[in-house]
Amino acid sequence: MSKRRNGGSAPSLEFVAGNGLLHRRALLGGGIAFVGALGTGAASTGVAAEPLKDPDWSLYPGQVTPVLQTPSRFEKNVVRILSNPKGEPRTQHARTPLQYLNGSITPNSLHFSILHSGIPDIDPEQHRFVIHGMVRQPLEYTVADLLRYPMVTRKHFVECGGNSGTMFSNEPIQATVQQIHGLASCAEWTGILLSTIIDEAGVDPKARWMVSEGADSLLVSRSTPLKKAYDDAMIALYQNGERLMPGQGYPMRLLLPGYEGNMNTKFLRRIKITDQPGMTFYETRNYSPLLPSGKAYRFYFVNEVKSFITQPSFGMALKQPGYYQISGIAYSGTGRIEKVLVSADGGKSWGEAAVEGPASPKAFTRFTMPWRWDGQPAVLTSRAWDDSGAMQPLRADFVAARGETKKPVKNPLAFANQHYNSLTAWGVDSEGDIKHVYV
Amino acid sequence: MSKRRNGGSAPSLEFVAGNGLLHRRALLGGGIAFVGALGTGAASTGVAAEPLKDPDWSLYPGQVTPVLQTPSRFEKNVVRILSNPKGEPRTQHARTPLQYLNGSITPNSLHFSILHSGIPDIDPEQHRFVIHGMVRQPLEYTVADLLRYPMVTRKHFVECGGNSGTMFSNEPIQATVQQIHGLASCAEWTGILLSTIIDEAGVDPKARWMVSEGADSLLVSRSTPLKKAYDDAMIALYQNGERLMPGQGYPMRLLLPGYEGNMNTKFLRRIKITDQPGMTFYETRNYSPLLPSGKAYRFYFVNEVKSFITQPSFGMALKQPGYYQISGIAYSGTGRIEKVLVSADGGKSWGEAAVEGPASPKAFTRFTMPWRWDGQPAVLTSRAWDDSGAMQPLRADFVAARGETKKPVKNPLAFANQHYNSLTAWGVDSEGDIKHVYV
Repeated sequence: MSKRRNGGSAPSLEFVAGNGLLHRRALLGGGIAFVGALGTGAASTGVAAEPLKDPDWSLYPGQVTPVLQTPSRFEKNVVRILSNPKGEPRTQHARTPLQYLNGSITPNSLHFSILHSGIPDIDPEQHRFVIHGMVRQPLEYTVADLLRYPMVTRKHFVECGGNSGTMFSNEPIQATVQQIHGLASCAEWTGILLSTIIDEAGVDPKARWMVSEGADSLLVSRSTPLKKAYDDAMIALYQNGERLMPGQGYPMRLLLPGYEGNMNTKFLRRIKITDQPGMTFYETRNYSPLLPSGKAYRFYFVNEVKSFITQPSFGMALKQPGYYQISGIAYSGTGRIEKVLVSADGGKSWGEAAVEGPASPKAFTRFTMPWRWDGQPAVLTSRAWDDSGAMQPLRADFVAARGETKKPVKNPLAFANQHYNSLTAWGVDSEGDIKHVYV
Repeated sequence: MSKRRNGGSAPSLEFVAGNGLLHRRALLGGGIAFVGALGTGAASTGVAAEPLKDPDWSLYPGQVTPVLQTPSRFEKNVVRILSNPKGEPRTQHARTPLQYLNGSITPNSLHFSILHSGIPDIDPEQHRFVIHGMVRQPLEYTVADLLRYPMVTRKHFVECGGNSGTMFSNEPIQATVQQIHGLASCAEWTGILLSTIIDEAGVDPKARWMVSEGADSLLVSRSTPLKKAYDDAMIALYQNGERLMPGQGYPMRLLLPGYEGNMNTKFLRRIKITDQPGMTFYETRNYSPLLPSGKAYRFYFVNEVKSFITQPSFGMALKQPGYYQISGIAYSGTGRIEKVLVSADGGKSWGEAAVEGPASPKAFTRFTMPWRWDGQPAVLTSRAWDDSGAMQPLRADFVAARGETKKPVKNPLAFANQHYNSLTAWGVDSEGDIKHVYV
């Protein structure tokens, strides 16, 4: 095979920040610039001068179609990692392999889950949901009842309050995106706006809170300000088009867009309308982030604006200099992602990434940035803004407010603290190896 | 349990068309109206005066979390139906159970597929993609090469040209939405715009067509006008966030948004740039719809604007009068769904449905319509418009142009003809039973 033509005739590329960051639209719709961008590290293997070979799979009929499709056997590493693979009687965390995924949807098979006492095997014909407490009329619903109600479909992320817990380590832990940030996922949810149900029951004007309870054996329960019920809360019955996965709360869950995962009660069986929070186990113990002063937040509901680069990231390697697409996820519990900046020099200079649109509020939003790696050390990081004006804090500011550990965290699945939303950075060395670094 | 309060205090409902169609926003954000709408067929089972029972699943720890989630065992009927379950050496159609799904995304496990010689078991490290023909420079790519290219993420439906083939029957076949319309699905696809690759190879200005070929054992190939490559064609590598399912063309497929499924070459291994169509087997034989005159379309690429109601539909039954949500799918290969009208009296009067937004171009778009069934016979149907000005033709007009069979079609999976995009209607009798009818 002969060599591809070099970039001699290519127009000059528009670099927007240090260490090779290109204008976000440089390579879309301007083909000749793309060839130039490849430079010596040509991404394609060159000219197809010989006829294509016919491998075995082009010679013989293939496999029988299954009624439910599953991924190729060559994708067997694209699975969730479990904190408790034998299912011992304690909490189980299943983390999403975000570094292998793209776009903004998490496939249902790979949506993260945390279960404190296993997955209940609920018969939807026997399950009941009740709303009671400070209402005009307590009401009980079957699943079949709710399936007749008006529904809406909305794309939203769900994230554990403890996601990215190892980022509080005083030294960067060498771990994958999945290990660090894999307790977040995004789906298109279909369900009934909670306001429809709340209004049907008729709420006492003095009510201020609701306490939701699941049908798992711990009856996990959490308190939420009632105003969220009138905002965008829903009772979700479908996830990416099909009925909820068992690990996401089949047959129904509470969905509180932008609020920490544990509040989005799975296996929803009860909402009690009250004038004060329930001060339940999970809100008083598990989900009360500590402050450097030794005090704790009483409540910390919102997952604030956040972003991280998924490709390239720790565990991958750049095999040669040349063009790469930097790709990552941004999301915010307070709005719609409006802007993501990317740096290849550890924050000295920044370029604006392309943000996949239309960006949905409180949903994963894919950002991408063309990058020409020159083979020298680089530090990749990202920073996101939402349409409420919120931005990701720089690490120094975040640590000053929220603290960090005194000793490095060693366990990649540890929870040193909660609600980390500062930067994540990946250091690329001259061999193309990638380490987790702080900037 | 006592009865729920009746609608005595509810404000009058806004009916927008005959047989109980309500204003599309009547029941959202106006709770008291909703109670009124329920009428005698109260959708909820009434007051929760007794404490909730604790079924077994609330008493004992649940099941162990798997690395890949699968649906509840209570959803075992939500699977694809196969035309060739043993995988004999002929074509296999796997149809999506659209009547059980909601929202706009088809989960990857349930995306429809048609395979003419089984699913090839392709090793992505061995697979090659070549662009050649009337280009400045033929080029060969590995999957790893392409994963470095700039990518976009877009939601698009794919539909077989033969989908809804039994709708050409001169009498309505009694079959489910899955059997009739299940050869259509919708996903969020991530991949490389074909224009990026085409431009890199450098196309001869005299070129007008491209012939794409798959790596399955039949080397299925189709011709597409080259202008589609510069419009919105892409080489898709991801489906709803994860790498393509084997049945959708792993490791890569051509995606031609809005063009009939067979043209969206799976297992893509070659694109030849040409000045004329290839006149390949599938474009000259399988996918040339017949006209009443006995002539055939030479090419019929676009899946035109279409809609159908998925809930309620054939195979379901309404158990009692009262409120229901009519829900369905609209999509168009020529644009974005702009309007869907719904009728409950077989087309005598129409009301405008709520269309889930923001509607993406060439994508499934969910529409919903609140309906109060009075227990009398009703005929439900829908009609869609897109932003190109195209509308679904009425059946009489469609049949006049495209013909129908002389004898009723008996096989629910038959292909009497192709590219049906007229109406689908469901007749509800006074028992609540649902039949397929023509309007």
